[in-house]
Amino acid sequence: MAYEYKAVRRVEFADTDMAGIMHYSNFFRFMETAEHAFFRSLGLSIVAKVDPPVGWPRVHAECDFRAPLYFEDEVEVHLLVSEKKSKSLSYVFKFRKLNASPVIEVAHGKLTVVCVRHEKGEKMAACNIPDFIADKIEVAPEALLDGSR
Amino acid sequence: MAYEYKAVRRVEFADTDMAGIMHYSNFFRFMETAEHAFFRSLGLSIVAKVDPPVGWPRVHAECDFRAPLYFEDEVEVHLLVSEKKSKSLSYVFKFRKLNASPVIEVAHGKLTVVCVRHEKGEKMAACNIPDFIADKIEVAPEALLDGSR
Amino acid sequence: MAYEYKAVRRVEFADTDMAGIMHYSNFFRFMETAEHAFFRSLGLSIVAKVDPPVGWPRVHAECDFRAPLYFEDEVEVHLLVSEKKSKSLSYVFKFRKLNASPVIEVAHGKLTVVCVRHEKGEKMAACNIPDFIADKIEVAPEALLDGSR
Amino acid sequence: MAYEYKAVRRVEFADTDMAGIMHYSNFFRFMETAEHAFFRSLGLSIVAKVDPPVGWPRVHAECDFRAPLYFEDEVEVHLLVSEKKSKSLSYVFKFRKLNASPVIEVAHGKLTVVCVRHEKGEKMAACNIPDFIADKIEVAPEALLDGSR
Repeated sequence: MAYEYKAVRRVEFADTDMAGIMHYSNFFRFMETAEHAFFRSLGLSIVAKVDPPVGWPRVHAECDFRAPLYFEDEVEVHLLVSEKKSKSLSYVFKFRKLNASPVIEVAHGKLTVVCVRHEKGEKMAACNIPDFIADKIEVAPEALLDGSR
Repeated sequence: MAYEYKAVRRVEFADTDMAGIMHYSNFFRFMETAEHAFFRSLGLSIVAKVDPPVGWPRVHAECDFRAPLYFEDEVEVHLLVSEKKSKSLSYVFKFRKLNASPVIEVAHGKLTVVCVRHEKGEKMAACNIPDFIADKIEVAPEALLDGSR
Repeated sequence: MAYEYKAVRRVEFADTDMAGIMHYSNFFRFMETAEHAFFRSLGLSIVAKVDPPVGWPRVHAECDFRAPLYFEDEVEVHLLVSEKKSKSLSYVFKFRKLNASPVIEVAHGKLTVVCVRHEKGEKMAACNIPDFIADKIEVAPEALLDGSR
Repeated sequence: MAYEYKAVRRVEFADTDMAGIMHYSNFFRFMETAEHAFFRSLGLSIVAKVDPPVGWPRVHAECDFRAPLYFEDEVEVHLLVSEKKSKSLSYVFKFRKLNASPVIEVAHGKLTVVCVRHEKGEKMAACNIPDFIADKIEVAPEALLDGSR
């Protein structure tokens, strides 16, 4: 059972905007990078090869921005599972700028995703998270979540 | 004084992902599209030509996703000013799929931005919103905000 | 029969990079915007609802960049059909900055796409462009192409 | 003196489009990723801290697409310096899908960039590549370039 994953990304030129900092929409892309790497770390893929296939549409996303990220900054995206329900998962993300001394938390994100089933020719509908996924994921200890659940 | 703006965008191929729907990070790009068009509608630019220049870094962004958007969908991004402080503005965004009958609200976003001053060679710092901007913007009526302030 | 289309886009904040100009990868997204609007102008969609479905993977793309585009610039993306074969189409794109006096050509692009068929459970393979599409498209006059075929 | 660099990227969900493959504009972002990592490998940054600052606008970019890239594919972006002039550099990029057996070349790109100087309050103008950069870069051997110069 796992409840966290730390992905590291370097801010690329194309991630910046004319204000000279990473565009805020990319924090949401980076959250997803960590979510998908978390799944790979469990031997899974967010694009599960099951029949019928399941998907994970986002139902809520948010981010607090505390300090900017610049070109070539190295950022750790620390994913923590903050909630686990039968049909949904919630994550907290702590963005830390590694090339700062001391390391600083530059942003704090949240994401809630729902498990859905794609039956052929039918509308997708929320479903229980398959056991082979749910059995590998647990909620992070309260102390790590800092009350940010 | 203005408190709203409606921008219309068509979902492009590059906005979609392999799930066949608009990638969730693009809702945040679309919010900004409406914010900047709102400023233009007031005879302003989000990149104000004042000395020293002011900028508008985002401090909070969030979105609830209720229904997917597909390629070539026409979406109205309805911006409403939900809060106006001396140094910050908050917006609410209602995403409506226009090519649905009836039109449905597919997402609901929020954004808080802070006015900052870029003095040459100094760190940027929060500042009062210049009068020539503040004088043109007011908070939307409560009825339009649906308690979503 | 049609051989051209003019799409207009405004450069958005998220399209810019820290150099203060539109990131070069976005010229390729804008080419596609014009291509898909060209299809819509013919009563078609690039995502054709035929059985089996056809797709249009890109096999070659290029662009010459002559002048930068800035935030809020209005750019006309002028698509011209430069070649039509049984299984492929080639386009030329002239990017013109409309808010310049005189209007200047800031970039010149080319794109070649191939028509493919997605049979269920099979690899996609090049196929003849369906008649209902091919019948609506012709090559632009040589004079308009400026030898850029 | 260096003439090559190999960057490795994993295709992310946000890099894909509704056709289920990496969107073609992202190949151009990946080229830049390799270019900037090449500079870092030489102890440089593409955003040089010199006075006056120099920049590297793109004047030509192209790509041939031979096979698609899918979500979670690992791709090696092999940069080779194909031309070095007093004011410009040209690169060739070989995209190899590493998680294929045998490894296959999925795309082949080219990029030409010009060195420019940003004098305060003046238009940017092409300039000689500063010695501390030029001294570290040489053209790749003909055999590696496969006549793709």
